[in-house]
Formats: sequence, C-alpha cells, structure tokens
Amino acid sequence: MHILIIGAAGMVGRKLTSALVRAGRIGGKEITRLTLADVVLPEAIPFSGEVKTKVADLSVPGEAVSMIARRPDLIFHLAAIVSGEAEADFDKGYRINLDGTRYLLEAIRQEGLKSPYKPRVVFTSSIAVFGAPFPEAIGDEFFNTPLTSYGTQKAIGELLLNDYSRRGFLDGVGIRLPTIVIRPGRPNAAASGFFSNILREPLVGQEAVLPVSKDVRHWFASPRAAVGFLTHAAELDTEKLGWRRTISAPGLSATVGEEIEALRRVAGDKAVALIREVPDPRIISMVAGWPRNFDTRRAAALGFRAEKTFDEIIRIHIEDELGGKLG
Amino acid sequence: MHILIIGAAGMVGRKLTSALVRAGRIGGKEITRLTLADVVLPEAIPFSGEVKTKVADLSVPGEAVSMIARRPDLIFHLAAIVSGEAEADFDKGYRINLDGTRYLLEAIRQEGLKSPYKPRVVFTSSIAVFGAPFPEAIGDEFFNTPLTSYGTQKAIGELLLNDYSRRGFLDGVGIRLPTIVIRPGRPNAAASGFFSNILREPLVGQEAVLPVSKDVRHWFASPRAAVGFLTHAAELDTEKLGWRRTISAPGLSATVGEEIEALRRVAGDKAVALIREVPDPRIISMVAGWPRNFDTRRAAALGFRAEKTFDEIIRIHIEDELGGKLG
Repeated sequence: MHILIIGAAGMVGRKLTSALVRAGRIGGKEITRLTLADVVLPEAIPFSGEVKTKVADLSVPGEAVSMIARRPDLIFHLAAIVSGEAEADFDKGYRINLDGTRYLLEAIRQEGLKSPYKPRVVFTSSIAVFGAPFPEAIGDEFFNTPLTSYGTQKAIGELLLNDYSRRGFLDGVGIRLPTIVIRPGRPNAAASGFFSNILREPLVGQEAVLPVSKDVRHWFASPRAAVGFLTHAAELDTEKLGWRRTISAPGLSATVGEEIEALRRVAGDKAVALIREVPDPRIISMVAGWPRNFDTRRAAALGFRAEKTFDEIIRIHIEDELGGKLG
Repeated sequence: MHILIIGAAGMVGRKLTSALVRAGRIGGKEITRLTLADVVLPEAIPFSGEVKTKVADLSVPGEAVSMIARRPDLIFHLAAIVSGEAEADFDKGYRINLDGTRYLLEAIRQEGLKSPYKPRVVFTSSIAVFGAPFPEAIGDEFFNTPLTSYGTQKAIGELLLNDYSRRGFLDGVGIRLPTIVIRPGRPNAAASGFFSNILREPLVGQEAVLPVSKDVRHWFASPRAAVGFLTHAAELDTEKLGWRRTISAPGLSATVGEEIEALRRVAGDKAVALIREVPDPRIISMVAGWPRNFDTRRAAALGFRAEKTFDEIIRIHIEDELGGKLG
C-alpha cells in the first residue's frame, strides 16, 4: 500500500505520518511506501518501507500530475491556506484551496483514463463551511453558508470530492475537523489560537491571554482524535456514505470556562492564574460567528470517536507533547 | 441602466429580454442599453434604447473580461450546459458551468480593482443542487447534495456568488428555479421534458408520451413566473439576504395526475386522451431522485411569487404561446 500525504509538513500531517508509521498497516494492508509532500520539505521519518519526501505546490499546474503518476492507493489531502491568510490574500486562497484541490482530483481522473485507477482520497474540510446564524447544535443536514473565503473553498472542495466520487473517478471521504486543541508549538496568529494557548502555555508555567469571555462555547477535538478521524476515513466502508461523502467529525462542545476548570483540575490554581483576560473586540466579533455545537450522529454511527471531556484533551497533550508529566 | 444578459438566446433569456423591453425600466431606473450574449447569436429585439447582440462563450478566457469592460449595471447570468449534457460530457460541464461562472465573477472583481464597480449579478441556480433522500418539503436550510455534475456546478456557483458578494466585489442574488412548465417549442431530450410535453402537445391536438406514473410529485413554475423571479431578484434589497445570497424560488408542488386533471378542466377529455402512458425505467429511476416539494417561506417573505394551481400554469401558456385561445 502506497500512501501519499499532501500537506505532510503541517501539524496534523506530521502526527498522521507518525501514526501510520507506528501502525505499519491500514485497512488490513501493509504500508510499503510513503510519499510526503508539502510546500516546505517534510521531515523524513524512520520507516521500514520506502519514504519519499517532496517539495511540491499543488496549485502549480502539473505538480498534481507528477504526484499521482506513481499511483498512490491512498491519498490524504491536508494542504490548505488557512482561514486568515485566505481572507487576506483572495487570489492565493482560491489558487491553493480551490485550484489545487481541483488539480489533484483531475490528475486522479486523468490517470484513471489511462488504465483503471480509483484511490481512496481523504480530504480535510472544516467547520468553517458553516456560518451564523445556526442552531445551537448543527445537524448532519444543515446547509453550508461559509462566512470566509476559506470556508467557501472547503465547501467547494466537498462538492468536487462528492462529484468525482459519484462519477467513479476516486473514492473520496471528507472530514470536517473541529478546532484542534491543544495545538503544540508556539502561539500562532490564528484567531482561534487562544483556545490552545490558554491551556498549553499555563501547563508549562507561561502566561497566556484570553481575548474572549468565558461563556464562549466552541467545538473541539485533540490532535490525536483528528489523526484518528483521518485513519478511520481511510479504512471506512464508503458504501455506507452514499453520495454524501463529507462528514462533520465528532467533537466536544465546551465553553472557555469549562476549558479553564479542566485546566484547574489537571494543573491546579497556579496554572489558571497564568491566564490573563484581555478582551479583544476583533476576536470577540469573529468568534460570535463560529459554530458552538454539533449533532454528529452520522459520524458516531460510522464509528468516528472524539474526546468527551476537556480533562481528556489536556491529558492527551501531556502524554503526547510533554512526555507524560507536568513540569 | 445597462443590462447584460448572458444566455440571452435560451428560452428564459428570450422571455426575460422581452419582459425588460416591455417594462422599459427596472428598480425604478430606465433601461438605456441591453447587451444580449450567448453562444449562438441572440435575436435582436426592437427597443427604444441601444441593443447589442453578441456571440460569446463565457468559458473562453477573456470573453468575460470583454463583456464586463462596458460595465453593465445589472447582469443576468443564465448561461449553462444543461443537466444531461453536463453528465454526458464531464469536461464541458465543468468548463462552462464552473469555469465560465468563475471567469465572469473574476472579470467583475478585476474591473472593480481598476475603479469602483459593483454590479448586481442575478444567477440562475437549480433545484438540482438537492439530492435524495430529502424531506417531503425541502426547507431553506437544507443542505446541497447534488446527484449530478450539473447540480454540483450550480452549487459551486452559489458558493462563489456568495463569497464574491461578501467580499464586496459584486452584489449577487442566486435563484434556484423550479422545473419550468410549460416549456414552449418542440419536445426536447431533457429527462424532465415530459412534464411539459404532456400538456403542450395535447393542447394543440398532438399526442404526448408519459414515461412515469401519475403519482410522481414534482416542483413547478411557469416561464412567466421564472422571469418574475429574475426581475424581482434584480430589484431586491439585498441587505435582507445577509450572506445567504441564493434563494429557492417558490413554486407549485403537484403530481402528474393533478397536472392531467388541470389539463382536463382547461381542454377537456379529448386532450387528456392524447396522453399515452409508456413507462420508461430510465426516466422513472431518475425522477425518483428529484425534489417533490419545497417550503420556500424565505422567498415568500422576500416577495417572490409563483402560480398556485396547474390551471393557472396552463392558462399562462395559452396566453403567452397560443395567442390566448385553444385550437
């Protein structure tokens, strides 16, 4: 089994690569070859099979064709310009998130026109395909009304994935990821970064800024759960999906206040005391348009699993990023 | 006011052109210039203002730019490869229905980068953005899961129209048209053609074939109503739409049996006797996936109006196509 990961250098891509290497198999088949592609060179990883790393920009015509020429059996398409950047640079967002995705799907179709080829394609979509106003819990049949260009591009990717699957060119599964917490690494500029920052920094004795009120509710899963969604999507019997190939992944609906109380239980008052409340009107107004909760019974029926408490999410971070113990 | 109609040579385009010329004004402003574009030369129409007809294929790069260079204030984008053809010719469907629409929106954006320009764009979408299974009446927040490439391309057009509107590049309104009955002209190859054929042909003493059962329920509006949706969309206060720029138009939910009973009331038993039932398994199976009914309370609140009975739909055909009288 040859696996191609596009966007392999990102946080989810690296964790997915590690998980695949650790497992050595997926869907009952041995993984013999890994191709790791991204716009920056992905780190090579020790592996019993063949590993190729590759610098490639999916939005450059021809790059997708060359990635597909070796006919990977399973393709994870994680590459994207994130929300803030796609909003700031309209052309770049459409070029990478829409044209790039279309080039990939089209390269697969063209390869299949030469001789039969129908890989599984796992595509990461986002809850950004939804836009306020929405019900308190967004159900599996709620419509896509994105309020960002990024969300628009992801929603279009879902539609293309579905049509290319229906036409028999590939076997696609889209997963709408919740906001991933706790993101490892340094605080980043993403508007949603504070959800991670206010846990990750205090856990190692650093201050963090909370720019919104504690009653803000949002939708979360751990990096470990995200990797689980992707590998499960790769193994899923897609007959069960019909021509509705994208699934809102399960997650945890929690308020910032609940997040902080979990931090208190795991790391005590001294950790919580490191959170400084500095309201930021720009972030407050953005967050007001974000989903708060989902009813993901479809994902549950298909066997997708996420964390049920923030304590669990914090413990996963301590295990996976802090060597299993607190400073 | 300069109006550009793309797809002006089609049935809806011709009727829209006539209606605009008859009214002479739209949204309280005088129409001074009409540009009629299509892949075949639209018929020129007597008009007090300036009329330009133009053969143009929107999917050829540069064509949209040249259409937009004269900065029309109002653009009707009706051009599309229809469902059957987009399914038969995958590349052509994407080239015209997706790339063509994107070229148009992008040409408008680029024109606006030179100096402020923000036209109203009325885009015809379709109930083909919905795919079974769905509820008996599809509500305004039901998701898009098209079962054709055409429906996929229309759903993508809706998303793009929305994003380009949200970003301030244009002022878009999308209208999902019901199946238009009674289509004038000869029977065509569209799978949905029989809904028109079984009325239009008997009304002039010709036989028509009914390929499905009489209890098939579907969603209809007259050509006159369709033109009304488009002109209303052109005049609408788009503030009321927020960033949900596409609307399922109102229509009439009726069974084929109800359609036939209306024919009987208007044209008698001898007309009904001209309908031959010849079940066609291919059409029966396609129709099974089509929407049956909508709950279009949003369109109603916005002032869109359609027929309430099939008698009315038949009477409109007699008035508009048969000179007001039968045989």
